[in-house]
Amino acid sequence: MRVSHTIAEIAAALGAMAAGDTRLTVTGAAEPAVAGPDDLALAMDPKYAEGLKAGSTRAAVLWEGADWQELGLQAAIFVSRPRVAMAGLTRQFDPGPDIAPGIHATAVISAEAVIGPDAHIGPFVVIGRGARIGARARIGAHVSVGAESRIGDDALLHAGIRIGNNVRIGDRFICQPNAVIGGDGFSFVTPEKSGVEEIRETLGGRTEIRRQSWTRIHSLGGVEIGDDVEVGSSSAIDAGTIRATSIGPGTKIDNLVHIAHNVQIGRDCLFAGQVGIAGSTRIGDRVVMGGQCGVSDNIFVGDDVIAGGGTKIYTNAPGGRVLLGSPALKMESHVEAWKNIRRLGRLFAEVADLRDIVTRLGKSGAHGHDDDNKH
Amino acid sequence: MRVSHTIAEIAAALGAMAAGDTRLTVTGAAEPAVAGPDDLALAMDPKYAEGLKAGSTRAAVLWEGADWQELGLQAAIFVSRPRVAMAGLTRQFDPGPDIAPGIHATAVISAEAVIGPDAHIGPFVVIGRGARIGARARIGAHVSVGAESRIGDDALLHAGIRIGNNVRIGDRFICQPNAVIGGDGFSFVTPEKSGVEEIRETLGGRTEIRRQSWTRIHSLGGVEIGDDVEVGSSSAIDAGTIRATSIGPGTKIDNLVHIAHNVQIGRDCLFAGQVGIAGSTRIGDRVVMGGQCGVSDNIFVGDDVIAGGGTKIYTNAPGGRVLLGSPALKMESHVEAWKNIRRLGRLFAEVADLRDIVTRLGKSGAHGHDDDNKH
Amino acid sequence: MRVSHTIAEIAAALGAMAAGDTRLTVTGAAEPAVAGPDDLALAMDPKYAEGLKAGSTRAAVLWEGADWQELGLQAAIFVSRPRVAMAGLTRQFDPGPDIAPGIHATAVISAEAVIGPDAHIGPFVVIGRGARIGARARIGAHVSVGAESRIGDDALLHAGIRIGNNVRIGDRFICQPNAVIGGDGFSFVTPEKSGVEEIRETLGGRTEIRRQSWTRIHSLGGVEIGDDVEVGSSSAIDAGTIRATSIGPGTKIDNLVHIAHNVQIGRDCLFAGQVGIAGSTRIGDRVVMGGQCGVSDNIFVGDDVIAGGGTKIYTNAPGGRVLLGSPALKMESHVEAWKNIRRLGRLFAEVADLRDIVTRLGKSGAHGHDDDNKH
Repeated sequence: MRVSHTIAEIAAALGAMAAGDTRLTVTGAAEPAVAGPDDLALAMDPKYAEGLKAGSTRAAVLWEGADWQELGLQAAIFVSRPRVAMAGLTRQFDPGPDIAPGIHATAVISAEAVIGPDAHIGPFVVIGRGARIGARARIGAHVSVGAESRIGDDALLHAGIRIGNNVRIGDRFICQPNAVIGGDGFSFVTPEKSGVEEIRETLGGRTEIRRQSWTRIHSLGGVEIGDDVEVGSSSAIDAGTIRATSIGPGTKIDNLVHIAHNVQIGRDCLFAGQVGIAGSTRIGDRVVMGGQCGVSDNIFVGDDVIAGGGTKIYTNAPGGRVLLGSPALKMESHVEAWKNIRRLGRLFAEVADLRDIVTRLGKSGAHGHDDDNKH
Repeated sequence: MRVSHTIAEIAAALGAMAAGDTRLTVTGAAEPAVAGPDDLALAMDPKYAEGLKAGSTRAAVLWEGADWQELGLQAAIFVSRPRVAMAGLTRQFDPGPDIAPGIHATAVISAEAVIGPDAHIGPFVVIGRGARIGARARIGAHVSVGAESRIGDDALLHAGIRIGNNVRIGDRFICQPNAVIGGDGFSFVTPEKSGVEEIRETLGGRTEIRRQSWTRIHSLGGVEIGDDVEVGSSSAIDAGTIRATSIGPGTKIDNLVHIAHNVQIGRDCLFAGQVGIAGSTRIGDRVVMGGQCGVSDNIFVGDDVIAGGGTKIYTNAPGGRVLLGSPALKMESHVEAWKNIRRLGRLFAEVADLRDIVTRLGKSGAHGHDDDNKH
Repeated sequence: MRVSHTIAEIAAALGAMAAGDTRLTVTGAAEPAVAGPDDLALAMDPKYAEGLKAGSTRAAVLWEGADWQELGLQAAIFVSRPRVAMAGLTRQFDPGPDIAPGIHATAVISAEAVIGPDAHIGPFVVIGRGARIGARARIGAHVSVGAESRIGDDALLHAGIRIGNNVRIGDRFICQPNAVIGGDGFSFVTPEKSGVEEIRETLGGRTEIRRQSWTRIHSLGGVEIGDDVEVGSSSAIDAGTIRATSIGPGTKIDNLVHIAHNVQIGRDCLFAGQVGIAGSTRIGDRVVMGGQCGVSDNIFVGDDVIAGGGTKIYTNAPGGRVLLGSPALKMESHVEAWKNIRRLGRLFAEVADLRDIVTRLGKSGAHGHDDDNKH
């Protein structure tokens, strides 16, 4: 499961300069301290120089201007933006998933489904009536795809993923194990006005508490997902009620993320682990949310908003804003708020002290005239 | 996968008035702006009037008192509470899951299991020894049901659900894909008193830090779930230790919710996405929790409590309370607290200013007598 | 599915004293109020005495010094630390999972995989090329194990678990249903510096907002897990980029927990439900996190840290610290902060009052000389 490349091939794929014996072959990438003779050591920072010298490495990716010969190497590649280089390097050494070509004998595929050419479909996969899967799909074990759903070309679906009915997904979709796309939305109504509806109107007040039970609103709208989207392990994206829940092209979603029904998410967003977006909320383009962020239902988050981990957004957020905290504040307001909170002990002492002084001043200054201080 | 109804049938099912050509047939519901001639447009608010006129819609659901003829319609249904109408409308147009009648040839069902009449059981389903499934069950692909578990009549289990051993569920259970019910509780003990036990007694102080390792307490109690319960995608409800973890009838649970061992939840509760309830906590009836709420272990949340999204409840909450924030405060206290926090910068400035004035007053007023202000 | 033991056997396994007819047989454990004649009642606290007398129980586990004959019992076991006794008791009465010995006929096991002796492998399990499973494995239905992964002896994998490629796990691993180990890390880079990189440098400021799209960094490092680890339902542990994401021996992880790529976790940690650890963060030994804790990426949490439920850790935490809140503070600072916040209404009033007094003092004391108070 190792992948073999020459230094010249790797440099060409990265668009980077190489030096030394560029015909040398490596079969993996490793940190300098543990890299063996067949590994390409990843040493894009001078701090790795010692590690390189200590090891048995023959070839490395180095920071620009590094003296590869002095480091004892036979070949080197030079990069300026290490994380960008990491994208190209890891892609080249990724052997890909272990899904055999063709359709596994155990797969249950509806006679009314259409599977594109060059499919790799694993054991126990179930594809429903009217589903269409594009060209070159790779679908791991135990995946199920519901009726009338469509997935574009070059999809990679890892094991155990659940695609419901009426889900439409673009090209180059990548989805991690056990994600669920197109489950029913969580939408219930009480025959009478519910306590939740009441406190939304009164901001907390409740006139009377009634018994209530919940009637479900079914989800008919499915899910629409653009091209180049990724979804993480065990994330859940619910179907919309009448129109589709939608995720724009290029958006990447991490593990255990919850996207509720009717949510509209723009393009090129990045949502880290355990983010939750409540129902009918709209998120703009290029929005970045750290882990465990939450966004209330029926609000709007503008383009280019960045929210730090754990931020809870309760109200509309204008485009470009950087948010932090629960409740979400502008980053500088959040930092200021907590600096102030941590100084409150001193503030209480200061005010008590002022009270003492003022009381004394009142007494000493009260030479004859009446003091009306009644506190 | 579209469902056909006449306007008269739909109105009758909703208990609503209809007008015009009520024999007209529609095969789906849609928003006014995109509704086609075979769709029932959902336009329960006057704001949709323009959209209706612009489209090719022949029939719509309208607000009470709307002039359907002026809107260019051939037929209309009139409703007073739109979300209640949505429940009835979406139910009528839901084609239901794509699970064929009968038991799929690939399903592995224990000879000691009992499956009720009219079952729909999908590919690769596994039903364990002694399990009993009620009448008219619909069970999607790749579901597994453990030994001695019981599920009532009219269950709908979507793909990939895991029901453990010794789980007892009432009638009309609906469960979204990849949910897990009856996993082992997370319950561990150290041979000596652990750091966690110590700080619970000392409220934060630690006398000494000991090495500790964890011995598991097994979960023998299973799970009990009442009638009319729903559970969302990838939610996890753990088995109890000795007695069952229990969920009351009518309670609805969204995606990625965590219900720990021994938790007792009342009837008709609503828990939104990513809520977490820690071990042995009791929740009353009709409790509503927004997304990402958390409740500590071994506490009690009274009937009719409503907690906004992201609320973290650390102590017992009396019935009827409306809570918000982390830590949870009464909603009005939370709003007041954050209003105050955001004014702290001005308060610090105000106190500094008062200090200046008082210092000056002390100097100007210190005409001869001694000032004992030592601060 | 009940397990039969004599009182003498149970006492011996617990290392506890027994009294009365220790040859008496019980087939389960129950709370005193509901224990039947074949149950061992669990009554380790005097508060259960009344419940015992009311029931039909013949044998019980009692607090030290209890008068078993006065409680109407035929046999009793005496324990000093009830939760430690619970570990032993529940282990003895656990019938274990319903997985038949041998390899189920439907399992798809690569010819290049190695399965240890005495395996129990359930229906529809898929084991990939080059995978190795130790002795006495018990693997539930629908589990998949990726290429070249290794799992030690005595593993218990419940239904629906996904083990990716290149995952190496120690002995006695226990994993709850639908967990995912070895999904791809969530690691993306923009060709130009992204907004997130910029605000990390400027602490919130943004000079210009650029369009950006995301290029993935592949995950080649897999996951390494020590001996005696447990992972909860639907938790997700991502593969590392170059080196492995690692979990130390003895660490226990609850449901719906997210462990990102490159994270290093020490030994004997305890992470409750819905905890999230962001990428490349290092966690020491014996760290305990309550439910819904979050830890930022690229930081360090020292040995023996304890974080209460909902704590969000944004910066390095020194060993032994007890943390609470969002943002995380030392427990006593958190308690103090919220005590102060809740007193802010009074503080604002107090400062307003001081202002009034000072204003009056300034006027009354301003007998002739100039007051430069310009506020």
